[in-house]
Amino acid sequence: MLVEKHQNIIDNAVKANHERTFFAQYPEHPKAYGEDAPAKGEQEFKSLLNQPFEKLKQKVITGWTGEEVSPYTQEPLGITYPTMDVQELIKMAEQAAPAWEQRPVAERASILTESLERIKEHFFSIAHATMHTTGQSFMMSFQASGPHANDRALEAIAMGYSELQRYPSAQTWEKPMGKFTIKLNKNFKAIPKGIGLVIGCSTFPIWNSVPGIYADLITGNPVIVKPHPKAVLPIAIVVSLIQEVLEANGLSPYLCQLAVDSSSDLITKTLSEQPAVKIIDYTGGSSFGNYVESLPGKTVFTEKAGVNSVIIDSAKDLDAVMQNLAFSVCLYSGQMCTAPQNFFIPATGIKTAAGTVSFDEAVNKLKSAVEGIVTNPKMAAGTLGAIQNEVTCNRVEQTQKQGAKVVLASSKVENPEYPKARTVSPLILEVNAADQDIFEQELFGPIALIIKTNDTDHSIQLAQQMAHQHGAITCAAYTTDPVMHEKIETAMNRVFAPVSFNLTGFIWVNQHAAFSDFHVTGGNPAGNASFTNEEFIIKRFVWVGNRSLADA
Amino acid sequence: MLVEKHQNIIDNAVKANHERTFFAQYPEHPKAYGEDAPAKGEQEFKSLLNQPFEKLKQKVITGWTGEEVSPYTQEPLGITYPTMDVQELIKMAEQAAPAWEQRPVAERASILTESLERIKEHFFSIAHATMHTTGQSFMMSFQASGPHANDRALEAIAMGYSELQRYPSAQTWEKPMGKFTIKLNKNFKAIPKGIGLVIGCSTFPIWNSVPGIYADLITGNPVIVKPHPKAVLPIAIVVSLIQEVLEANGLSPYLCQLAVDSSSDLITKTLSEQPAVKIIDYTGGSSFGNYVESLPGKTVFTEKAGVNSVIIDSAKDLDAVMQNLAFSVCLYSGQMCTAPQNFFIPATGIKTAAGTVSFDEAVNKLKSAVEGIVTNPKMAAGTLGAIQNEVTCNRVEQTQKQGAKVVLASSKVENPEYPKARTVSPLILEVNAADQDIFEQELFGPIALIIKTNDTDHSIQLAQQMAHQHGAITCAAYTTDPVMHEKIETAMNRVFAPVSFNLTGFIWVNQHAAFSDFHVTGGNPAGNASFTNEEFIIKRFVWVGNRSLADA
Repeated sequence: MLVEKHQNIIDNAVKANHERTFFAQYPEHPKAYGEDAPAKGEQEFKSLLNQPFEKLKQKVITGWTGEEVSPYTQEPLGITYPTMDVQELIKMAEQAAPAWEQRPVAERASILTESLERIKEHFFSIAHATMHTTGQSFMMSFQASGPHANDRALEAIAMGYSELQRYPSAQTWEKPMGKFTIKLNKNFKAIPKGIGLVIGCSTFPIWNSVPGIYADLITGNPVIVKPHPKAVLPIAIVVSLIQEVLEANGLSPYLCQLAVDSSSDLITKTLSEQPAVKIIDYTGGSSFGNYVESLPGKTVFTEKAGVNSVIIDSAKDLDAVMQNLAFSVCLYSGQMCTAPQNFFIPATGIKTAAGTVSFDEAVNKLKSAVEGIVTNPKMAAGTLGAIQNEVTCNRVEQTQKQGAKVVLASSKVENPEYPKARTVSPLILEVNAADQDIFEQELFGPIALIIKTNDTDHSIQLAQQMAHQHGAITCAAYTTDPVMHEKIETAMNRVFAPVSFNLTGFIWVNQHAAFSDFHVTGGNPAGNASFTNEEFIIKRFVWVGNRSLADA
Repeated sequence: MLVEKHQNIIDNAVKANHERTFFAQYPEHPKAYGEDAPAKGEQEFKSLLNQPFEKLKQKVITGWTGEEVSPYTQEPLGITYPTMDVQELIKMAEQAAPAWEQRPVAERASILTESLERIKEHFFSIAHATMHTTGQSFMMSFQASGPHANDRALEAIAMGYSELQRYPSAQTWEKPMGKFTIKLNKNFKAIPKGIGLVIGCSTFPIWNSVPGIYADLITGNPVIVKPHPKAVLPIAIVVSLIQEVLEANGLSPYLCQLAVDSSSDLITKTLSEQPAVKIIDYTGGSSFGNYVESLPGKTVFTEKAGVNSVIIDSAKDLDAVMQNLAFSVCLYSGQMCTAPQNFFIPATGIKTAAGTVSFDEAVNKLKSAVEGIVTNPKMAAGTLGAIQNEVTCNRVEQTQKQGAKVVLASSKVENPEYPKARTVSPLILEVNAADQDIFEQELFGPIALIIKTNDTDHSIQLAQQMAHQHGAITCAAYTTDPVMHEKIETAMNRVFAPVSFNLTGFIWVNQHAAFSDFHVTGGNPAGNASFTNEEFIIKRFVWVGNRSLADA
């Protein structure tokens, strides 16, 4: 029944995955979800505060823990989550797995799509939960944890749906031998690898986790979701809804378990090193990411740190460029993995339709554009959001004191609605190409570095080197010269960094659209995997073919 | 021009890869290649002996080396091959790469197919070269290094041809924003990872190497082929022909280089550890295979050792079963990675249409069937071939002395055509399920162990354990009971081992057919890769997508 109900959604998603044109199953505008939804969602969020989160269908509980604090109010959410023994998590996943594996892929796809439809009904409560754990603005929380995340989950379901049906489940093989024929009946089975572990981060607890969760599930594997202890609620809601739908379809909710821990007693390594855990999806810092990648006998998908570059060569309208880039810098205070950090501008200036703009003028235009956002009460709070982690604020302070020329100092930004919000304006520094000790690293958070280069070739060389050595998830470039366009694209693609050219207006380098943009290429140190290419799916199972002599 | 010439071959191969029905572009029967071909091929082989191999288009040579000895004549082939400095190999590959990468995939596919057509003209000389390096019989040498290898190469070309065109090379993305539309021009590029290294083995120098060679090339990577120093000639001929075709099409022959070394001065580790080497294909022992797999920053495809099991539960006609298995044991003296080694037979006997056959009778039937082959002058030499490496003979002797019950002792087998051929009959031992120290390892070569189990469930349990712990590339099973059939298939598939059921007559468990059977699943310790699934192809390149604001 569910199969028929959702076949159209799945077929559309499969088609979109291939064509890579614009497609969204879940509209990104909050208004698409009905008039009552906002109030209902806020109410739902509030009803969860200051009490145990009891929606999970996990019953063998060792204790309760919770340490989330809103970056907007500085108040604890007061929610505790059940903790479970690691061995118990493994045991329950193993028990749940066989029944799931036996369901045909079309059925698995429809049940998982049903769970997305269920999640859709809770987009607003999830948005509030995201806002008050990650510090994202409400709009970003809504879009990133709601429709955008659901679309990326659907993308993974659809890719699995295609890949698992790539070969005939049964086939006859007839080899002509002259006077007779040898006939074998063959079957081809996609055998799931085993328990998946999805390790979440504190800034995008849903968007970065659901691709791995749904990829594990569609390929027939049970999954254990280990959220960051400071950003549990959003994904806890999602996991509880997946569990509900699994149970409603006669399956064990233990196919998708939440494994909550606390900062003082982390279980991530213990979980990762379980022999029964065969697949790990990880989003977070490079040091732990490299550890996870090094674990023997595991299939590992990572998104780690990177240094995203902006190469500015020439532009029609430099003001439009700088406004676009300023927004990218301000958006969620540079806490997106796609946020630009290093801005390479030639000392000789930037050619524009209105003549060459000098380096200093260009720097000033970026500064003004950022100031325009952070001093605009209608834009500042909604764009910057809040800083998820105090450590990020400290990094901004430390970097400001490092001795580089301060173009724009970071300062507290008022949020009228949340006076205690941890919100600061971006720090902009100007450095020389020789100051690699400053810009040759990810400076996570609201920090932008303008690097003065000899010329665009020099900019390209440095941006390429950064991506190669330290990874890059995005690169923005501005040029009106087709030869330079090609040069930049070739150089950055060579180190497996994608380039976005000449973005102005309502489209930003930070955005990666499901069904069209691969998120992270997997080819440089910023991560070894990509949302969602085939590799992200097919490494989670093994094709096994069996043969039987026909009429034997 | 070449694109049109070979489009039909490629289209058929793409179709076959998907459908997995019987398909062979290159007929396996020698007669298909013309009346003159055998004599011409033998002449060509002889013309290569006792002199430097000068067909390679590699010019910066540091010396000449060669140590091949025919397992049939015990005489050195007397051929020397050019050696090159490792840095030179890397440099030349890097220089050759860009022009190749820029060719459209359809063109790359057609040039590579053209090379297969060129190789086809030399199947007979390649067969002789294979025979006198590996010890395979002439027929196996012809088929495995000729048509079967070409078909596996074509399979890789076709899989690459599909995968590289999986996404549109250019696409427009239009996002409706209410009052206006954001329009991006996007492109999707499959960027090659870098230099490939293919490490060959001494028993199947072509069959096991060409999938990696062609997979590297079709995906736009240059490749360095490092043959086993005792089996260079077959792959040297192939590489020289690939080089010829590349050069004829305006490309550098250094896209596919042969890197010959000597047993006393191996360069495999040095090559593997070159930072510029990004992809490694390896066939051989597990210890070196595990080392290669552990190298950081490399994409590695391995086929290592495994322990292949035979589970005999019940059969219509046990004589037909034992004849089939005896042939599998004798074929190339168990030196195939797909050869069965451990035969699990219940102490309670085997149910057949003619009543239960006791354990001892069953053992006797296998013994008789093997004797029937090795004492038949028309079959023995052509089936057994010769032992490639003296070490294998020593292993047979050692194992024979180990104290287990000898069912059939190994002894010298005469080859009338080659009196000095290193040919021995298989050793068959009978052991108990408790003798895991004997059967719990790969005993490469003509060694079969019959393991007495309590019942078929016990057989399954042991076979599963062996595959899980030590790897398995194949498993043969005989049962007339549908429930047992399902049980065996499920248990072995769970450890990612494929099962062949009830093979009798002219089809053997050792055979894996291109375009239909995945060779090695990649899921157990016998190897991490599979000829040829998508993973074998798509891990050699990275999808990178670029975006440009339209009309910017």
